[in-house]
Amino acid sequence: MLTTGSSVTLRVPASSANLGPGFDCVGLALGLWDEATATVEGEPGLHVEATGEGAEAVPRDEQHLVVRSMHAMWRRLGVQPPAGLSLRTRNGVPHGRGLGSSATAIVTGTALAYGLAARSGLVAPAQGLLDLDVVNELASALEGHPDNASASVFGGATLSVTEPVDGAGGSPATTTVPLALHPDLGAVVLVPEATLSTTTARAVLPPSVALETAAASTARGAMLVHALTTDPSALMAGTTDLLHQEARRASYAPSMALLDTLRAAGHAATISGAGPSVLVLTTAGEQARAEIADLAGDRWRVLAPGVPTCGVHEVQ
Amino acid sequence: MLTTGSSVTLRVPASSANLGPGFDCVGLALGLWDEATATVEGEPGLHVEATGEGAEAVPRDEQHLVVRSMHAMWRRLGVQPPAGLSLRTRNGVPHGRGLGSSATAIVTGTALAYGLAARSGLVAPAQGLLDLDVVNELASALEGHPDNASASVFGGATLSVTEPVDGAGGSPATTTVPLALHPDLGAVVLVPEATLSTTTARAVLPPSVALETAAASTARGAMLVHALTTDPSALMAGTTDLLHQEARRASYAPSMALLDTLRAAGHAATISGAGPSVLVLTTAGEQARAEIADLAGDRWRVLAPGVPTCGVHEVQ
Repeated sequence: MLTTGSSVTLRVPASSANLGPGFDCVGLALGLWDEATATVEGEPGLHVEATGEGAEAVPRDEQHLVVRSMHAMWRRLGVQPPAGLSLRTRNGVPHGRGLGSSATAIVTGTALAYGLAARSGLVAPAQGLLDLDVVNELASALEGHPDNASASVFGGATLSVTEPVDGAGGSPATTTVPLALHPDLGAVVLVPEATLSTTTARAVLPPSVALETAAASTARGAMLVHALTTDPSALMAGTTDLLHQEARRASYAPSMALLDTLRAAGHAATISGAGPSVLVLTTAGEQARAEIADLAGDRWRVLAPGVPTCGVHEVQ
Repeated sequence: MLTTGSSVTLRVPASSANLGPGFDCVGLALGLWDEATATVEGEPGLHVEATGEGAEAVPRDEQHLVVRSMHAMWRRLGVQPPAGLSLRTRNGVPHGRGLGSSATAIVTGTALAYGLAARSGLVAPAQGLLDLDVVNELASALEGHPDNASASVFGGATLSVTEPVDGAGGSPATTTVPLALHPDLGAVVLVPEATLSTTTARAVLPPSVALETAAASTARGAMLVHALTTDPSALMAGTTDLLHQEARRASYAPSMALLDTLRAAGHAATISGAGPSVLVLTTAGEQARAEIADLAGDRWRVLAPGVPTCGVHEVQ
């Protein structure tokens, strides 16, 4: 049973996904953070307090995504949920912009629940308060794809492959590895005011592609890893997507127009996740940021949030 | 005009292609070598002397693949072919086994022709006798895909992406990068007695695949680069092909049966190129070679040719 009075506070980073060809498999943590505290209370009931990005819109009950994710982890661990629970969140990750806010919330919830179980002696992680592999596996399954969740769990850049679901209906197994980013590499994120739900974005993808497109996409995915880790001069070749961006052009036309402008100027721009934010990978630091801001004009918020080398972590 | 009496001798390595998901884009040089000497003769006519692998089957006239490739390079360079030419080849690369023998021949021819032009002062490479980028570009175009040719040109492991052919009918542009192989990595090659033409092998590929298969393949391509360069423990995940091997199973059933056996035992086996040879990537050296030979039985020749760090090069 969870110990009354036990409490866990965590920070979890935002993320960008896909980076062009790394569709549903490559994630990049971004230095925009959600912070949350969960406490097992003596009094029964659920108390949710939310501030920051999206606070006006999130439910304050069992439907809150962090709370749902906590219950999913307790089910996974075979831990009885507490009768009384309080949750306090302060969100720094913009919602509905392709910056992984739902994955951040899911990682927050699964990690808080694991942390409370560890505090109560019900699980024994190898070190610290969390078992990041357990959090990553469940968070990726809840999210439906591992790219954003893995980046929020591990920080830096991540690559995940998922084994197909077997015939017996078992969960797919996800393998996530960290990619050692080239030290000169930085990220610029362009955030529009408009939002876009991921469900809408995914609806327009074609069911199939030509074999040669699949092969060319595979080559681009390989080149993306090479560019991220070893040779950023290959970033233009390594960020060319052939599977999803063009098919969704109508869903985020201003983002694609900006992407075209940036790429024509030699900037390795991609749609961040399912959009509509645009991610640019660059080695040119502040100079690139200024050029990109000029090209974008004033309808975009230009962020250079940095890529944190850690993901979800406890705040003492 | 090419200088009468000028002569070039080159060595060119064999290669394996695909390595699972790296279909038509990833190549690996193998330490099996063709050697060839071309000489501009004062007497008109073509004289071809061939020894070694496949020597009994190759034409001794203008249809010889090395000779055709020489003429293609001279056309590219705007160099008048000589009236008299002798070619002497000694082949160490088995033919029709998925070890890149045609790419090796094409690289041999294009490089010999370039080298003779350089000897005659008609082109000026930045260093040495050859411009490897020029050789790679033409050899890849002649071969139709860059994977084998690039490995034979540059040695080691290579990754190539090709820009789509534009509407004006121009040649596709290929970008090839070297992949810095993890130092523990080695290759074991299993060669059957049966041969298989690449045309037959390609004929059974499906025209299209599901989008999710294309996305999963892209993730595997990314994981292949990570496994080859950074973390060989990811080799099993990184060598899982989703595009071509299963579709061709009937074309090389014994190879796929061996592949299944090897993978079930934890060896990262793939079909080498279009087969029927099987390539295993391993960090376990001689121990792996012995285990693999045991699993293969006596119908397969087991080679551990090493991965040369240089590709085509002049022999003085």
